[in-house]
Amino acid sequence: MNSTPPPSTQFCALCGTKVEHRIPLEDSRVRAVCPACGHIHYDNPKMVVGTLPVYQGKILLCQRAIEPGAGKWTLPAGFMECGESMMQGAWRETFEEACAQVRLIEPVYHMVDIPHIAQTHLFFRAELDTPEFGAGDETLQARLFAPDEIPWEDLVFRSSHSALRSWIADLERGVFPTRHVTLKPLVD
Amino acid sequence: MNSTPPPSTQFCALCGTKVEHRIPLEDSRVRAVCPACGHIHYDNPKMVVGTLPVYQGKILLCQRAIEPGAGKWTLPAGFMECGESMMQGAWRETFEEACAQVRLIEPVYHMVDIPHIAQTHLFFRAELDTPEFGAGDETLQARLFAPDEIPWEDLVFRSSHSALRSWIADLERGVFPTRHVTLKPLVD
Repeated sequence: MNSTPPPSTQFCALCGTKVEHRIPLEDSRVRAVCPACGHIHYDNPKMVVGTLPVYQGKILLCQRAIEPGAGKWTLPAGFMECGESMMQGAWRETFEEACAQVRLIEPVYHMVDIPHIAQTHLFFRAELDTPEFGAGDETLQARLFAPDEIPWEDLVFRSSHSALRSWIADLERGVFPTRHVTLKPLVD
Repeated sequence: MNSTPPPSTQFCALCGTKVEHRIPLEDSRVRAVCPACGHIHYDNPKMVVGTLPVYQGKILLCQRAIEPGAGKWTLPAGFMECGESMMQGAWRETFEEACAQVRLIEPVYHMVDIPHIAQTHLFFRAELDTPEFGAGDETLQARLFAPDEIPWEDLVFRSSHSALRSWIADLERGVFPTRHVTLKPLVD
């Protein structure tokens, strides 16, 4: 999962001409517009999909092998790919990062808008039938944590932190309503 | 709302060099990779956000002024923009297309994955306090429809159709659970 916003377009994706940054006719936002072929490049927010995988009351976290956050813990999640549904993406990311084949629980559980990096993170609750998991390419290790063992100080992504906080709070009541959160930029 | 999938990148957005389409190291999918500056272009699904705006039991639909679907009816919805949350985007689209200032109801109500065009559509239920609405630039007219007046045969987008079907079904029970739907390509 990469938290860097996309670079702004300087050259036309279709013909390679240097673009102009201006508001197209009948639009209200600045876009990268090609003066040669007329193509308008739209930048839109990206979706990150992931899971809160649970086995016998414990939650599966991944210790990251790569930056950002190498050595820190997080929920399995990553960018949704073209051609898949949200649930397919969340399943795939859980398999790729934690080698776990989970059963996803509908509907989506925790939704995190992060407007300043143009991302929306969507987490599904999920269950493991057996304690089979491992470390994918981007993961040092995957490990089950009881609710009182979660390494809060060593979590890396704010969206994972937020999803885990919701899950802990909802565990006590035993109901898991869908939640929306919007994250603002951190200020020192 | 434009249902055309994004064109595939032929030239590097950063330096204008002709890209190669290949699987980058430590990836599993073909991407547009720049042989000059090394930039990898990721295409990801886009989010469309919209509302089911209700005033005194009637639903507000927009008759489209533009293609696709000119002359047909749909819910107000459009592409989420960078820098906004899902709810901000849904509010903005409702204001732009139907000139209505709605109160959105959390959580998200109807979620439609459309993998073959790399889009996810997210609809919120919403309420109008007063019958103030109108036609935005992309709209011929906006109009309130009682549940038994919805012009099913003249709706344009399948996601709107799906959201309205859910709403009608849920109206009878008076509960509106969050739903996920995945649309497959139409076959003649």
